[in-house]
Amino acid sequence: MISRQAQQFWTFIANSPKQFELPLDMRRRAGERAESMTAEPRGVAFSPAHEVGGLWAEPPEAREGAAILYLYGGGYVLGSPKSRRKTAGHLALACEARALVPHYRVGPEHPFPAAVEDSLRAYQWLLAEGADPARTIVAGDSAGGGLALATVVAARDAGLPACAGIALICPWTDLACEAESFASRASADITCTRESLLEMAGWYLGGADPRHPLASPLSADLSGLPPILCLVGGDEVLLDDTIFLVRKAGMAGCDATAIVAAGMQHVYPIWAGLFPEADEAIARIGDWARGRMG
Amino acid sequence: MISRQAQQFWTFIANSPKQFELPLDMRRRAGERAESMTAEPRGVAFSPAHEVGGLWAEPPEAREGAAILYLYGGGYVLGSPKSRRKTAGHLALACEARALVPHYRVGPEHPFPAAVEDSLRAYQWLLAEGADPARTIVAGDSAGGGLALATVVAARDAGLPACAGIALICPWTDLACEAESFASRASADITCTRESLLEMAGWYLGGADPRHPLASPLSADLSGLPPILCLVGGDEVLLDDTIFLVRKAGMAGCDATAIVAAGMQHVYPIWAGLFPEADEAIARIGDWARGRMG
Repeated sequence: MISRQAQQFWTFIANSPKQFELPLDMRRRAGERAESMTAEPRGVAFSPAHEVGGLWAEPPEAREGAAILYLYGGGYVLGSPKSRRKTAGHLALACEARALVPHYRVGPEHPFPAAVEDSLRAYQWLLAEGADPARTIVAGDSAGGGLALATVVAARDAGLPACAGIALICPWTDLACEAESFASRASADITCTRESLLEMAGWYLGGADPRHPLASPLSADLSGLPPILCLVGGDEVLLDDTIFLVRKAGMAGCDATAIVAAGMQHVYPIWAGLFPEADEAIARIGDWARGRMG
Repeated sequence: MISRQAQQFWTFIANSPKQFELPLDMRRRAGERAESMTAEPRGVAFSPAHEVGGLWAEPPEAREGAAILYLYGGGYVLGSPKSRRKTAGHLALACEARALVPHYRVGPEHPFPAAVEDSLRAYQWLLAEGADPARTIVAGDSAGGGLALATVVAARDAGLPACAGIALICPWTDLACEAESFASRASADITCTRESLLEMAGWYLGGADPRHPLASPLSADLSGLPPILCLVGGDEVLLDDTIFLVRKAGMAGCDATAIVAAGMQHVYPIWAGLFPEADEAIARIGDWARGRMG
């Protein structure tokens, strides 16, 4: 069912050292090095965004006022704007919108809610810089996906203008990690385990309740949120984090879409350019986002 | 969140007599009359398909070899090709493919598995008539959505060529009706109740096991199936029939997408032309289907 290129890629990953078995400092360096394996998005111009410690990705054709706020993944304990520079570039091309990738603080040095505070500030700064909220997508992958949702919830609660949509790549929405897919997908998932996620959740939470709605947005009141798109691999322990988020969002009166990609692993869309399933994921986010931007 | 037109339409439906409170013969006539409220798809040519007791919908621009097998809903106890003639026409336009809407027998006069036998025969006939399975979508709404999935499962088990995709509009996938959304969405759903669905399931099953995989395809082995797209209204008691089907399909290694439309009621896409949410649903099925047809 999956492409030969994806099969080869996942075999390579399966035979690589497990990041989650490394000490945190080595894990952080490995997370940064992984970026070198991603493919360069063609024609995108990158520039620093000093005010938010991050970067801009500008596609050759950007719609007036359109923007993406992109929050990198890394279990709330690692990652950087640079680590998702190219992912943001691929999304900028597909969405025809410039993308801002801000820095946010992570645990254990800066526990919850530092990451949410930084991301909310970046959203406010993006709007102040001229992004039209009705043409702005808030997005992220893995922990950055949960953080994107938490940021939109926090923005709603703060009375800020609503964005046009929320695009989540393999989001981690429940830090308690109690869904059934942690067991049923354990043997299929080659990069994440429940234990490693719980370890990172502990570092991030620093004693806070894992059910806090801004830490685990699956626990949040989702009413009044803009449309949500979630992509997830069929072979992820985090499958249910997408399924139950979309279910809850639908029951709360939101437009919500879940796309489950056969045989794909965690954050598979970041490998755009390396195998067709990742390219299709980026294309589907682009189609969806352009539809939401009006 | 929902359009003014949709709001007006659902208010009208909420204030209309409940179909499921009528005796079966009156319910059947009401089901046929409802067709007059749907909007005519422009430019589609209709013709009889005598061999399957149904009809063809031919769009002005059809891709070579592309086809849709469309199975009408009606709780497995009512409905007809005519009742979904216009829905098939809207889909034919969006998918750029001719659509075949066959007759299939319903309960209680013709209990399970008569409907599956007829639909499987229609699929075989469609391929014999020149449809390229790699450019054929099997689709349906409500009971017709469950039947579409059962037909693809039966086709796989019979060794027939696989179709390119399965597009399900608010499918009824579990005749036991035990999902949580039957309770949690009961007050939001203005057209379906668990009791009325169980009554129709009883008429259809005629004593057969509601968990039979070809009666309740949520119980089927879904491995090896082509990509699945499910659309469902957020205000439906059948919400979980979509959510858990997509979850199970993803775990079985299929590409599977769930689209939950905020504030929409059962089979909302059949009202294409009357409110924008229905139009968008048809457009999204078209985008998805054309992507699958290669």
